Amino acid sequence: MNQRTRSFSPGADAMLGVVHKVLDHGEVELVDYMGSDEMLARIARVSTGSERQDTGILAFLVRHRHTSPIEFGKLVLRVRLPIFLARQWIRHRTGSFSERSMRYQPPINSVYVPSEDYCQAKMSAGVKQGRGATMSASHAEWVRDEMRISARNSLGVYEELAEAEDEFDYPGLAAELARSVLPLGTYTEWYWTTDAHNLMHWLRLRLDSHAQKEIRAYGEVVHQIFKAWLPVLAQAFDDYVRGGVTFSAKELAALASVGLNASLVKAGDYGMSAGEVTEFAAKLDRLAALKPVGGES
Amino acid sequence: MNQRTRSFSPGADAMLGVVHKVLDHGEVELVDYMGSDEMLARIARVSTGSERQDTGILAFLVRHRHTSPIEFGKLVLRVRLPIFLARQWIRHRTGSFSERSMRYQPPINSVYVPSEDYCQAKMSAGVKQGRGATMSASHAEWVRDEMRISARNSLGVYEELAEAEDEFDYPGLAAELARSVLPLGTYTEWYWTTDAHNLMHWLRLRLDSHAQKEIRAYGEVVHQIFKAWLPVLAQAFDDYVRGGVTFSAKELAALASVGLNASLVKAGDYGMSAGEVTEFAAKLDRLAALKPVGGES
Amino acid sequence: MNQRTRSFSPGADAMLGVVHKVLDHGEVELVDYMGSDEMLARIARVSTGSERQDTGILAFLVRHRHTSPIEFGKLVLRVRLPIFLARQWIRHRTGSFSERSMRYQPPINSVYVPSEDYCQAKMSAGVKQGRGATMSASHAEWVRDEMRISARNSLGVYEELAEAEDEFDYPGLAAELARSVLPLGTYTEWYWTTDAHNLMHWLRLRLDSHAQKEIRAYGEVVHQIFKAWLPVLAQAFDDYVRGGVTFSAKELAALASVGLNASLVKAGDYGMSAGEVTEFAAKLDRLAALKPVGGES
Amino acid sequence: MNQRTRSFSPGADAMLGVVHKVLDHGEVELVDYMGSDEMLARIARVSTGSERQDTGILAFLVRHRHTSPIEFGKLVLRVRLPIFLARQWIRHRTGSFSERSMRYQPPINSVYVPSEDYCQAKMSAGVKQGRGATMSASHAEWVRDEMRISARNSLGVYEELAEAEDEFDYPGLAAELARSVLPLGTYTEWYWTTDAHNLMHWLRLRLDSHAQKEIRAYGEVVHQIFKAWLPVLAQAFDDYVRGGVTFSAKELAALASVGLNASLVKAGDYGMSAGEVTEFAAKLDRLAALKPVGGES
Repeated sequence: MNQRTRSFSPGADAMLGVVHKVLDHGEVELVDYMGSDEMLARIARVSTGSERQDTGILAFLVRHRHTSPIEFGKLVLRVRLPIFLARQWIRHRTGSFSERSMRYQPPINSVYVPSEDYCQAKMSAGVKQGRGATMSASHAEWVRDEMRISARNSLGVYEELAEAEDEFDYPGLAAELARSVLPLGTYTEWYWTTDAHNLMHWLRLRLDSHAQKEIRAYGEVVHQIFKAWLPVLAQAFDDYVRGGVTFSAKELAALASVGLNASLVKAGDYGMSAGEVTEFAAKLDRLAALKPVGGES
Repeated sequence: MNQRTRSFSPGADAMLGVVHKVLDHGEVELVDYMGSDEMLARIARVSTGSERQDTGILAFLVRHRHTSPIEFGKLVLRVRLPIFLARQWIRHRTGSFSERSMRYQPPINSVYVPSEDYCQAKMSAGVKQGRGATMSASHAEWVRDEMRISARNSLGVYEELAEAEDEFDYPGLAAELARSVLPLGTYTEWYWTTDAHNLMHWLRLRLDSHAQKEIRAYGEVVHQIFKAWLPVLAQAFDDYVRGGVTFSAKELAALASVGLNASLVKAGDYGMSAGEVTEFAAKLDRLAALKPVGGES
Repeated sequence: MNQRTRSFSPGADAMLGVVHKVLDHGEVELVDYMGSDEMLARIARVSTGSERQDTGILAFLVRHRHTSPIEFGKLVLRVRLPIFLARQWIRHRTGSFSERSMRYQPPINSVYVPSEDYCQAKMSAGVKQGRGATMSASHAEWVRDEMRISARNSLGVYEELAEAEDEFDYPGLAAELARSVLPLGTYTEWYWTTDAHNLMHWLRLRLDSHAQKEIRAYGEVVHQIFKAWLPVLAQAFDDYVRGGVTFSAKELAALASVGLNASLVKAGDYGMSAGEVTEFAAKLDRLAALKPVGGES
Repeated sequence: MNQRTRSFSPGADAMLGVVHKVLDHGEVELVDYMGSDEMLARIARVSTGSERQDTGILAFLVRHRHTSPIEFGKLVLRVRLPIFLARQWIRHRTGSFSERSMRYQPPINSVYVPSEDYCQAKMSAGVKQGRGATMSASHAEWVRDEMRISARNSLGVYEELAEAEDEFDYPGLAAELARSVLPLGTYTEWYWTTDAHNLMHWLRLRLDSHAQKEIRAYGEVVHQIFKAWLPVLAQAFDDYVRGGVTFSAKELAALASVGLNASLVKAGDYGMSAGEVTEFAAKLDRLAALKPVGGES
């Protein structure tokens, strides 16, 4: 029963130290991990005392949101990312961060400039502002130029403030103050540790179509690392969390009455607002897309 | 914009200090609270800067799991409950507890004995052990007698250990050791504070048909308090969380093929295990129960 | 025993809605609260069952770090602060934040520019970089001009990117991208809720002489609010946490040998590094400063 | 810079799977871990960008309570312990637990009975109840007999309730109800994962002289595991946390006036209560005990 070695994941082991590139200067690297599908399943079985040795229990845990055993899987990522994304990321309070400090170090000399297709991308699903129309290539080029120039100017002011000036007998403004002129697109770097349950929660939000395209780019890399590390759990995540759809009590009432046909439902029916009717239709569209060609229902 | 008074909930205010009875000796009392539907909506609107003044945003927050603003609602409950339930309750780590200590005080002189119908109740949905058949009234009476006698005996041993004995020149065994003979059904008491988001999470788990009937009894009382305190949010909870159903990717594929007819799906189809097929059928049964009489689909 | 009204703090009530100014454009406002010294003491007494009615137990709780009862006090602050400070503040993971989103709204049109004395201030105690020498008034004026111009330029680029340009048939770059050119000194605004225990932890760190002067300015305002809200607990915080000094095992060995005379201790003694000797001397200097004039020891 | 292998601690590796015995039937086993002194130091250095390669920074982190990098060390323990201790342990909310469920399994057939010297031990320092006088050997033997008999009786009632009875046509009471007759001394078992920072917090509380002797026995075993796993960090814990003493503002004022001589301080001086004077004297006694023989101060 007792094991004399650490849990081991061949997929995670193969990824240690591999630097994944994201955006123009971003990076994600798996630095360390604890746990494997087998270990998490073993931890979970202490509850019921099951004698089974396989990992089938992981799908059950995810389906029924029994999160404690999943929290025994841990990983450490090194991430290089623009500050405006770092501010979104840190909203997840269940991990720990160790970040490069701009009180004690100069900034990383890189500022995010979106590629042409990132400029042109529509803003997240359902948001009406910006990114609504299609941006022309020449417009995108102009945007990119403006951002590059602005970044260069801001970094230049930082340098000027932080370095000693001949005319003043002084070593330069403290980094902790000079940094306030740096743009939110400046890259920072941190180590992040979290557990497999909270990683799934992060992935659910960061892979969502409402998330900013830039954070989704990080989400996709982290998803690859997750699949390599814990393939059975990651499959359960795809089956039950990411691939699942929740219908509200109102939507269930609509389904009971009109079946899988959203066009028969309008605002006010079943207590639904206009927004809820739109969301309901989107869910059934997603369902319809799964329908086998030539299938009958 | 600024307000010079605290947020106020008339429903919560009316409940302050009211002692709700649960089980044979259990109690739940709302001791304090912060926040109202209006305050939570105001906190949420800082994100988008909306000028609206109503509470419609709360349904949106719950539907899309934007939890931060909901965490601004706080309450304090005083709860008296058997220790084996207290052990389940404290698994929720996002609140704070201040509990009567049995190192410094003698125990509450009450031990849980289930009523006849609690003895007879089937164990939670889907669990095969115990409570499967129907227990006779005479059997239940025997169970209750056994538990009462056992409780009395254990409390008697506690007294004997903790009090000075004539034959020994000693003030009695320390309470911290004597308590180890007390049964898990002994009542304890604590104050619990949590926020409205984590309260909804607690309610989702504790009102679930898989939860032990005894904790569901507490769940129902806490649900009443929640509805009095934040009626708009509590309605959203009923519509989107408690009343909702999540279909997995596999179930969606089944729905797309066979519609709302679970009888056409068997283990192995769409990658489903036998357990998943049972769960799928239960979801569609729940749906069928919503069908209006004489309705057509 | 039961009370039919909420806990009440006259000092907090008087502060509700009062806007405290910080730095050039910062604000702190007490928006809501739950709990009073009396309520926290009542919650704490459930542990031992004491019959006392006073608040003396709060000093005991703080002295012995019994934190649970203190977590029953909650407050909500509205804070307007520069983004580089917001990034420090949010490192405290035990509260909840609801922040103005720059995906859905344009930025607040204010950027932090330090006053002359903030430019001149030395960086935090013990840090060798920057702020070491005294900055001349003319140098500070030059810094402030540079920062003002840089802020104006960055905000100008944001406007240009976010607004429709005549030459392009497009509504302007999405706010979520345009924001990346804004400086870290741009003000943001959020609501923050935390509990009295974690507030004390925040205050200990943010009032520390190693904290950046700008965050200390917020710390001092929050400290005033804390003292108005929970005066007995705040006094205990001053006596035992903020006003306390911890000596390490090595320092205790030094004290035992040489008494309160740091000059007799040098690096290497008692296993101390040079840094530890400096810290030890600073602690004894602090002690010496408390010595009554004309006193004898 | 990048490393292609996991962090490795030779001391932790040697302990994996070793079962440490505690009390009469308790066990502690290191099941898994992530992190080493070297890895934690590397994570910490990202903040300042230091080029050093040693682990000296760990002492600095502990001394100044910079906790984030320390949270990157993780471990998993399997623990078998009496339920009344499990209830203390789970008050630490920053870890995850996976526990043997007595809804789905019968109890572990072991109940804690204190050894003679545990019966005789005084209750924790400063507590006046119980354990005050010295318990005689014959009294302790009587206590142990009473507890053994009570445990046997309670386990007997559990068996009777949970098993089918001939006279009733029923499979036996559900385990989730039958368990309520079991004593608080019944052993349970769980897996626990936490991080090195929260482990130090746990150790500080559980090794304290005020903690119950039984939990201190677990604390000492966990302390051994900690020292094997992260020897440099564990030394810093001993030097700065466990071996340190904090003096309050009032005590500092006293020290400034009367030096290291508690006998000159009485209740009322410097605002101290009688309890504080006693605590002050205890701190100075601890200091005096460190004084080198024949030393002068």
